[in-house]
Amino acid sequence: MYINVSVFDTVSGELTRGGQELLQNWDANPNAIIWMDLIKVDPGLESQLLEDYFQFHPLAIEDTLRKNHQPKLEVFSDHVFFILRGVIAGEEPLSFTYQQLAMFVAPRFIVTRHQGQMSSASAAQWGYLMSSRSALERGTSYIAIMLATIITEQYLPLVQELEERLEAIEDGMFVSPRDEHLNELLYYKRQLKKLRRSAAYQEYIFVRLREGGIPYFPRSLRHELNNAYENLERVGSLCTLYGDIANDLMNGYLSLSSHRLGSIMKILTIITAIFVPLTFLAGIYGMNFEYMPELSWKYAYFGVLGFMTAIALGLLWFFRRRKWL
Amino acid sequence: MYINVSVFDTVSGELTRGGQELLQNWDANPNAIIWMDLIKVDPGLESQLLEDYFQFHPLAIEDTLRKNHQPKLEVFSDHVFFILRGVIAGEEPLSFTYQQLAMFVAPRFIVTRHQGQMSSASAAQWGYLMSSRSALERGTSYIAIMLATIITEQYLPLVQELEERLEAIEDGMFVSPRDEHLNELLYYKRQLKKLRRSAAYQEYIFVRLREGGIPYFPRSLRHELNNAYENLERVGSLCTLYGDIANDLMNGYLSLSSHRLGSIMKILTIITAIFVPLTFLAGIYGMNFEYMPELSWKYAYFGVLGFMTAIALGLLWFFRRRKWL
Amino acid sequence: MYINVSVFDTVSGELTRGGQELLQNWDANPNAIIWMDLIKVDPGLESQLLEDYFQFHPLAIEDTLRKNHQPKLEVFSDHVFFILRGVIAGEEPLSFTYQQLAMFVAPRFIVTRHQGQMSSASAAQWGYLMSSRSALERGTSYIAIMLATIITEQYLPLVQELEERLEAIEDGMFVSPRDEHLNELLYYKRQLKKLRRSAAYQEYIFVRLREGGIPYFPRSLRHELNNAYENLERVGSLCTLYGDIANDLMNGYLSLSSHRLGSIMKILTIITAIFVPLTFLAGIYGMNFEYMPELSWKYAYFGVLGFMTAIALGLLWFFRRRKWL
Amino acid sequence: MYINVSVFDTVSGELTRGGQELLQNWDANPNAIIWMDLIKVDPGLESQLLEDYFQFHPLAIEDTLRKNHQPKLEVFSDHVFFILRGVIAGEEPLSFTYQQLAMFVAPRFIVTRHQGQMSSASAAQWGYLMSSRSALERGTSYIAIMLATIITEQYLPLVQELEERLEAIEDGMFVSPRDEHLNELLYYKRQLKKLRRSAAYQEYIFVRLREGGIPYFPRSLRHELNNAYENLERVGSLCTLYGDIANDLMNGYLSLSSHRLGSIMKILTIITAIFVPLTFLAGIYGMNFEYMPELSWKYAYFGVLGFMTAIALGLLWFFRRRKWL
Amino acid sequence: MYINVSVFDTVSGELTRGGQELLQNWDANPNAIIWMDLIKVDPGLESQLLEDYFQFHPLAIEDTLRKNHQPKLEVFSDHVFFILRGVIAGEEPLSFTYQQLAMFVAPRFIVTRHQGQMSSASAAQWGYLMSSRSALERGTSYIAIMLATIITEQYLPLVQELEERLEAIEDGMFVSPRDEHLNELLYYKRQLKKLRRSAAYQEYIFVRLREGGIPYFPRSLRHELNNAYENLERVGSLCTLYGDIANDLMNGYLSLSSHRLGSIMKILTIITAIFVPLTFLAGIYGMNFEYMPELSWKYAYFGVLGFMTAIALGLLWFFRRRKWL
Ligand SMILES: [Mg+2]
Ligand SMILES: [Mg+2]
Ligand SMILES: [Mg+2]
Ligand SMILES: [Mg+2]
Ligand SMILES: [Mg+2]
Ligand SMILES: [Mg+2]
Ligand SMILES: [Mg+2]
Ligand SMILES: [Mg+2]
Ligand SMILES: [Mg+2]
Ligand SMILES: [Mg+2]
Ligand SMILES: [Mg+2]
Ligand SMILES: [Mg+2]
Ligand SMILES: [Mg+2]
Ligand SMILES: [Mg+2]
Ligand SMILES: [Mg+2]
Ligand SMILES: [Mg+2]
Ligand SMILES: [Mg+2]
Ligand SMILES: [Mg+2]
Ligand SMILES: [Mg+2]
Ligand SMILES: [Mg+2]
Ligand SMILES: [Mg+2]
Ligand SMILES: [Mg+2]
Ligand SMILES: [Mg+2]
Ligand SMILES: [Mg+2]
Ligand SMILES: [Mg+2]
Ligand SMILES: [Mg+2]
Ligand SMILES: [Mg+2]
Ligand SMILES: [Mg+2]
Ligand SMILES: [Mg+2]
Ligand SMILES: [Mg+2]
Ligand SMILES: [Mg+2]
Repeated sequence: MYINVSVFDTVSGELTRGGQELLQNWDANPNAIIWMDLIKVDPGLESQLLEDYFQFHPLAIEDTLRKNHQPKLEVFSDHVFFILRGVIAGEEPLSFTYQQLAMFVAPRFIVTRHQGQMSSASAAQWGYLMSSRSALERGTSYIAIMLATIITEQYLPLVQELEERLEAIEDGMFVSPRDEHLNELLYYKRQLKKLRRSAAYQEYIFVRLREGGIPYFPRSLRHELNNAYENLERVGSLCTLYGDIANDLMNGYLSLSSHRLGSIMKILTIITAIFVPLTFLAGIYGMNFEYMPELSWKYAYFGVLGFMTAIALGLLWFFRRRKWL
Repeated sequence: MYINVSVFDTVSGELTRGGQELLQNWDANPNAIIWMDLIKVDPGLESQLLEDYFQFHPLAIEDTLRKNHQPKLEVFSDHVFFILRGVIAGEEPLSFTYQQLAMFVAPRFIVTRHQGQMSSASAAQWGYLMSSRSALERGTSYIAIMLATIITEQYLPLVQELEERLEAIEDGMFVSPRDEHLNELLYYKRQLKKLRRSAAYQEYIFVRLREGGIPYFPRSLRHELNNAYENLERVGSLCTLYGDIANDLMNGYLSLSSHRLGSIMKILTIITAIFVPLTFLAGIYGMNFEYMPELSWKYAYFGVLGFMTAIALGLLWFFRRRKWL
Repeated sequence: MYINVSVFDTVSGELTRGGQELLQNWDANPNAIIWMDLIKVDPGLESQLLEDYFQFHPLAIEDTLRKNHQPKLEVFSDHVFFILRGVIAGEEPLSFTYQQLAMFVAPRFIVTRHQGQMSSASAAQWGYLMSSRSALERGTSYIAIMLATIITEQYLPLVQELEERLEAIEDGMFVSPRDEHLNELLYYKRQLKKLRRSAAYQEYIFVRLREGGIPYFPRSLRHELNNAYENLERVGSLCTLYGDIANDLMNGYLSLSSHRLGSIMKILTIITAIFVPLTFLAGIYGMNFEYMPELSWKYAYFGVLGFMTAIALGLLWFFRRRKWL
Repeated sequence: MYINVSVFDTVSGELTRGGQELLQNWDANPNAIIWMDLIKVDPGLESQLLEDYFQFHPLAIEDTLRKNHQPKLEVFSDHVFFILRGVIAGEEPLSFTYQQLAMFVAPRFIVTRHQGQMSSASAAQWGYLMSSRSALERGTSYIAIMLATIITEQYLPLVQELEERLEAIEDGMFVSPRDEHLNELLYYKRQLKKLRRSAAYQEYIFVRLREGGIPYFPRSLRHELNNAYENLERVGSLCTLYGDIANDLMNGYLSLSSHRLGSIMKILTIITAIFVPLTFLAGIYGMNFEYMPELSWKYAYFGVLGFMTAIALGLLWFFRRRKWL
Repeated sequence: MYINVSVFDTVSGELTRGGQELLQNWDANPNAIIWMDLIKVDPGLESQLLEDYFQFHPLAIEDTLRKNHQPKLEVFSDHVFFILRGVIAGEEPLSFTYQQLAMFVAPRFIVTRHQGQMSSASAAQWGYLMSSRSALERGTSYIAIMLATIITEQYLPLVQELEERLEAIEDGMFVSPRDEHLNELLYYKRQLKKLRRSAAYQEYIFVRLREGGIPYFPRSLRHELNNAYENLERVGSLCTLYGDIANDLMNGYLSLSSHRLGSIMKILTIITAIFVPLTFLAGIYGMNFEYMPELSWKYAYFGVLGFMTAIALGLLWFFRRRKWL
């Protein structure tokens, strides 16, 4: 449990860092803005801070506490409320866990609240921002956009590394199709759908912010907003592209492997189809009838052997001519 | 048959609960608002109340009485009319029955009418609301939104439990593909399509309410409206996501099982293809020709056995080298 | 050939019914409105009435006479022109023939013209309306909407009866998949696509009417317009839903039947694969070599029989262990 | 090479027809409008007329000369420029070649330029229009719309004749599925996609013209514009419908033929599976062991024959009971 | 590393070409406009020019330096920033590498920066433009559109050559289906998806420019903008069309080849199914029972041969009658 607080005096430019106790400093100084960061805070204290101290809207608090709320932006009478969702890459390609962030933004305060673990990289960028006078000087909405940018920039590298993998699968597939490809592509399709959905919700948040009209987010931030928007738009577009390619590869793999299996079965069946008439012929002369004139002919055995060879060659020639071999 | 009535005096703050007889109290007191809840009321009485007493629009009453009308919102000259559709979860995952609710909302009254059974959970929330002074104080439109929220929040838990089930199917599928998976996934796809359709109609109702312009629903209710909207939007989005994943799993299952079947057939056919030439050879020396010189050679039998072994091993080596085994 | 005419005096409230001759009454009385219904009228008379007497726009008449024009709404300088398309249910589920209706609507007249047969039910509603003083009192645009409602309400029952049939197919499919299912589902998919297309054109007509701005269709008719709109919207939505489900069932059926066939082939092939090595062994000892020491051993025959049983059981055990049986 | 020119005096109503030389008459008479039709004109003369005489915009001329430019409408400062694309039906159903038409329209002139061949039917309509005083009286934009209508009405008959063919394929398919169906349906799908694309571009041109705001195309032409729009909209909608049905039929054909093949293979394999155990049994008693007690039993042979019959009947009964036959 | 600079005096019409040193001339002359083209410039110098000298927005510079940024248009306070993406055709059909171009456009300057190689054709057009007085006279926004047109016109020829190839594949497929077709079509589908995505981003840039409202891009350039837009729109539309056709061909190929394989397997299996009963019969009379009365009948052998022929012919007749052959 951590409560990290930065209080910044917009007149004197003084930055004070500490814990919950700094709320008093902020209250006392009308020029001060505060950034309070809540990490795994005990529910009782958390509700006391959000409900009683800051008096956020009950529906916003409800959303904050719900697990896996979809990313959103909602304007309340005295603050703007965000839910954002980052991803922390796992070891496998495209594996990830979500990192949910709630933000309450108003001109004099920004309250951030984490659900789940932060990645070490974003924790570092976070820490840097908390002690950056120049960032706090640009106001709470600038901080909010910077945090959103940190969060959303986790998506692109996760998705981009897939291109190479997909091309490797395509190349490998035509050499030696293997069953694990199917499993892997199915997994990618599922993960890409989830990532695209997450990115789409957040892209929509930045579309609204870019359009203007959201309080406390001035037009001067439009390039930063556009930067975050473009990043998410690209993630969504790549998810669609790679998802389509994965689908095509999956279909291609299945076709190819059913095709190869078919060719094998064909050759095996041709082997059978050639020997079955020959075996029948051998069976004929294995019969024990008393009166079978051929049996006593001198070269009958060799004649039959020759006839069998002729049948076999004839069938082979027939199969070849019809391009079955 | 139940008629539950709450009459609330907006000046004195007095709440009276009872049955149909309270209509007189409401009529007599211009400060009073009424909530009348009709549960399986006898058609004659029902039409008397809706047509004669409240004089609702005939087309609204027609919609109310029709079974399975799609959810809708329509503004009439002196009331706003809603049809909403909840779901009551059955025992199987994703099984449900609909719970249809018609609502007539005006500043001085709200009339609610059920079709089908209510779930016990929503009946309890309903009862609580009927006797809640603080809720009635906020007006009939607030009551209407609360009821809609109760109804529409039944969808999300129903859909969410599917994620785990789908991952279990995916995991199980690669271990031992079973035919019931196909049946189950087909069933999920159908149910998800129905749920998404229901959610989409209701999402659209809240989009319209949120946009404003619907009489009696003031901007002060926008956070409650947004809450219901987001819930339904999420249901729809998850239905699409899970429906896509179910589809992918179904295709994956079919591919996998046809693939495995193919591999089995290949091995069985290889067994046949190896023994067929050997059997032919045995057939040759089972022929009864009088003049077959090999038959009298001393080690011919062992030579033929050796030759057969060589053919079998040669074919195995050939199949292995071509990666058929 | 029928020409049915109703002339209604909006001042005296007098209603006169008859044929073509009533046109004079209408001409003479500026307070009169007329409804002329043309059923299979001879082309010469028809063109005289539409072109010369009413002087409708040539492009509207061209559309009226064309077979199978898509449903439309077009505003001309002195009348509004509609083409609508009803369906008359056939005997098979989802079988139908179209019933095309052209309407010319202006404040003082409504001219309706049928192509093809009317269903008996709609003919009765039609007749009732023609002699209904209270309907004519509400004006020609009200008549037009009532006719459109009669026409478009034919769609919903046609589509709704499919739900039960689809569930029956789904249930039956997993018990005994039959080839006729495929044919039937293919047929449903085609019919649903045609119905959806027809409904979509007409839904769009009511969207435009509801939006307002179409002359002679006042806002006071909005609930009637909305009623027709909702009906058509539901038809379209159900067509999409059932079409999707039919598609899923078709894919499910094909998978299931190819799957079952595969299982059968597997067992048949296992039978062959077990007996082929045994037959080979029998072939060995059927060879006629002079020196085959085993042949003279006392219990060789029983030994071979035992060995064969061992091979058969071994193969069965092997196939079972690999879950091929 | 043809240059057909009509010059019409809007005051005197005089119509003069001829070649390139009429440009002088037009130049000299400010009341005259001109229609110049260029058919396979030599590039030098063409560029002299378009670039130097009429001074059209270089980008419009570039589009005119490019082969297969997509249909378009572009407003230039002193003329409106169209590229339209008709179709000339070939002998096969749905086969066609494109007929590209460029038009430059201004109040005083309309210049039309063909690429490729005209159909004889449209050439006749074209000729009629060129010498129609009443058409030229309505102005150059009316001429332009009439030409566009001639061009775009070539699509519908081409597409409509497909409905019958598709139903014939559907009926034939369930009787005797043939490989040519596959080829034919694949061909229809491709052609329908091309037609839909062409129709969609042109539909969009008429959407823009109908909306108004395009210079020289007054609101009084709206019914003619709507007529052309509806025609193209219907073409597009039918292309989509028939393309979907063709797709369903293709999938249906494939399923059906793979299904039938499967049934055949099953029966053939059952034949094999019944005889293989019997042949094994015969093989047993064909072995040459010295001590095989059964061989000398009196009715052993008939007993074995009976046993074989029993096995065969037993297997048949087993296959029947499991519904494999 | 090259820095190509053109400085053009808009008053005297003088054009000076050279390197980085011309920045001074431009600085000194308020009537001068500059075009600076940066090709593989060393990062230090590049950042000095972009950041320090021109003082472009840091987010624009970040986008410029990022590899594979999606095409975009962003308006900054004192310049408009573009990222465009051309394609350089490789040797295979549809193979290409991207050619990324960043442009900073303001009334007095245009700075262009390449990433990757230019094609020799576009390098030549580029060089021509840099020394074209008449182009520079029309201003920096005209230059920008000309460059964008050069870049985007590389797409169409790449895509168009596919039509012929696809028809060749379709024709060849029905004659002799080959496995490489599958690989090739899969490759086309992937490449078309990438091209369409690239074209769509750039199409959107021109939609925005055509709509107007982007600073420095006056309405007088609208025909040039429309020309580039139409080119990209056509690329996207053809990518969709050919992608769909490639998909249909792929499905057609797979169906066809599985179909042919099936027919072959059927005939091979028929061969087996005919000989298996005959071989059984031969096996019967190869048994060594002491008491088999038929063995000693005079014409038994010939009778059996005749019976076998009858069975074979009977089976052939049966298979033919059921249309299996
Ligand atoms: Mg999604
Ligand atoms: Mg972007
Ligand atoms: Mg996007
Ligand atoms: Mg996207
Ligand atoms: Mg795909
Ligand atoms: Mg739906
Ligand atoms: Mg939301
Ligand atoms: Mg949504
Ligand atoms: Mg939705
Ligand atoms: Mg789906
Ligand atoms: Mg998918
Ligand atoms: Mg599929
Ligand atoms: Mg349609
Ligand atoms: Mg509705
Ligand atoms: Mg709809
Ligand atoms: Mg719909
Ligand atoms: Mg589906
Ligand atoms: Mg499919
Ligand atoms: Mg298209
Ligand atoms: Mg239309
Ligand atoms: Mg359309
Ligand atoms: Mg369409
Ligand atoms: Mg299609
Ligand atoms: Mg379909
Ligand atoms: Mg894309
Ligand atoms: Mg275009
Ligand atoms: Mg486009
Ligand atoms: Mg496109
Ligand atoms: Mg595709
Ligand atoms: Mg397709
Ligand atoms: Mg498919």
